[in-house]
Amino acid sequence: MFSQTIIRIYPKCTVNLKFLLSPINPADVNTIEGVYPSKPTHTSNLAASGLGSKDEPVFVGGNEGLAQVVEVGEGVKGLKKDDWVVMDRPQLGTWSTSRNVPFNSVIKLPATGLTEAHGATMTVNPTTAYNMLDGFVKLQAGDWVIQNGANSAVGQLVLQIAKERGLNTLNFVRSRDDSSLRSLVEHLESLGATKVLTYDDLNDKSLRGKVKEWTGGKDIRLALNCVGGEPTTSMAKLLGQDAHLVSYGAMSKKPLSLPTSLHIFKNLTSHGFWQTNWSKTHSRTEKEELISKLAGMMKEGKIQAPRHQIITIGAQESDKEATEKIRDVFHRMAEGKFSQKVLLKLEGPDV
Amino acid sequence: MFSQTIIRIYPKCTVNLKFLLSPINPADVNTIEGVYPSKPTHTSNLAASGLGSKDEPVFVGGNEGLAQVVEVGEGVKGLKKDDWVVMDRPQLGTWSTSRNVPFNSVIKLPATGLTEAHGATMTVNPTTAYNMLDGFVKLQAGDWVIQNGANSAVGQLVLQIAKERGLNTLNFVRSRDDSSLRSLVEHLESLGATKVLTYDDLNDKSLRGKVKEWTGGKDIRLALNCVGGEPTTSMAKLLGQDAHLVSYGAMSKKPLSLPTSLHIFKNLTSHGFWQTNWSKTHSRTEKEELISKLAGMMKEGKIQAPRHQIITIGAQESDKEATEKIRDVFHRMAEGKFSQKVLLKLEGPDV
Repeated sequence: MFSQTIIRIYPKCTVNLKFLLSPINPADVNTIEGVYPSKPTHTSNLAASGLGSKDEPVFVGGNEGLAQVVEVGEGVKGLKKDDWVVMDRPQLGTWSTSRNVPFNSVIKLPATGLTEAHGATMTVNPTTAYNMLDGFVKLQAGDWVIQNGANSAVGQLVLQIAKERGLNTLNFVRSRDDSSLRSLVEHLESLGATKVLTYDDLNDKSLRGKVKEWTGGKDIRLALNCVGGEPTTSMAKLLGQDAHLVSYGAMSKKPLSLPTSLHIFKNLTSHGFWQTNWSKTHSRTEKEELISKLAGMMKEGKIQAPRHQIITIGAQESDKEATEKIRDVFHRMAEGKFSQKVLLKLEGPDV
Repeated sequence: MFSQTIIRIYPKCTVNLKFLLSPINPADVNTIEGVYPSKPTHTSNLAASGLGSKDEPVFVGGNEGLAQVVEVGEGVKGLKKDDWVVMDRPQLGTWSTSRNVPFNSVIKLPATGLTEAHGATMTVNPTTAYNMLDGFVKLQAGDWVIQNGANSAVGQLVLQIAKERGLNTLNFVRSRDDSSLRSLVEHLESLGATKVLTYDDLNDKSLRGKVKEWTGGKDIRLALNCVGGEPTTSMAKLLGQDAHLVSYGAMSKKPLSLPTSLHIFKNLTSHGFWQTNWSKTHSRTEKEELISKLAGMMKEGKIQAPRHQIITIGAQESDKEATEKIRDVFHRMAEGKFSQKVLLKLEGPDV
């Protein structure tokens, strides 16, 4: 028996990461399917496994995740061993046990006060919610924001961040049986929703009057949409002069249809929002500031971690077992059997 | 018999105008019907006719028109007798023989080189065309703009102003029989259209490839829409990344329906444009500059006067005759029997 010392040499300006928790977001599945505008990117630095070599690059999924710094290479600034980091670039392949990446492709989180689930789910949904509230209309405390899909991951973040900023939210959700609806409304109100209504309420002729009463007649100038179709048209009609409708999803799979008169005579502007695009068009400093703000709100309990379920792939599981487990997760997601966010915990060998 | 001198005293800072030519625009008819967001405004300074007194205000139609200064009151700056002016404010009631207005509610035109038809039709359609090309996307010479309703009054101005600015236009019109289409295409090309296609061409699968060839693969970033409905959806799909769709009409009476993915993944922004709103939100200096630019292009023959028909109401016609003539014009307009712009010439008594 020999006493063996392994000397690891990390490339200059890179950090070696161990992933703690990595979400499977629906967009990740669409990326694998090739139907999402973010196309799979291949990697060739998984040499340790024999896969992903220069000759045989592979695609590693996962856009979002929380990792811990294991080792820093020469020239790395601002990061040290054990720091928690999130990804600064899309499609870094977070469904990994460990990974070596340029140090400026990750952003450091505050040392304490965050849960793993907070950190792992920070760069897609909370950033989307924050940027939609921030990037289109200059809002003051007391202003109103209207949104549909208020029960979606982003929707829940929108109403929490809005509350923190002193904004009121008018939230629409799908109708459901009385007791489920009551418990959903209570949940959203506990997170900070000002008003919660159903899409059916949009057909009620008295709604406009009620909204006017709630807002004190103040024009609503921002609407956030992840649904599309008819209910979104009705929601847009509740907006005032010079308003902005921002779409970040189309859960109904129906197009966004708006009377042209809203554009012409009420000066409504209709935009889209995609965090991946925001990320490409904003500086590292802007991204660090955003992550710092969101982490602060999370630490202070102003943003709750999403309801989630952790799926662990143990270090001792065979490739076959792991593959079967992951396939099963994908199948259940496709069947809509997860109502919570799915977070992967990929246990690697101790490093 | 006495020799009589009439002394006219005009209120301070007003000018007395004689109208030379005043269009009947479709929006004027909608205003009278009460279905347009510009509501009829009543006037009480038609005292000479016995109508429009303080006790019995009347609504005088007409939003646009060319007038000549007859007399200037005390304190008027920058205007003198015989100057040609256009209206700086909406709904001044241009279907008049004469009118006394605050001097800062009109804008002076260049002394020479414009026809009456140019002047009379300057403040609605050419301003709309100019501002849509100017206000949403920073375009460089060589860039492409796409539009439907290219044969509309605004559409024809868009392609003329675009040409003057070195922009290329891809123009869509309704399909019609071969020889009418050929003559329309020739007309639009003579005005400066780069390419003219029909809405039917939008169904042609090879169109995208052709457009790519024409533009040299350059993204089209501005589309102007006065049609709505399905052809507009198809047109929007020809746009590149970060494009803007500006709607100023809805001739199809169908809503504007867009796949949400265009907003989210291609960052398409959909706006409306209404010159009345532009006018309310821009300074007098900006308006004067715009009118000066447009008048310059008209003088140089770069913007043609619209095809038009002048309807004269003679000074000697009785109220009954005049009313019947005007009613007939309205009926024929409603039946779509004017393919040209209708310009009213209201002859008053000599002043």
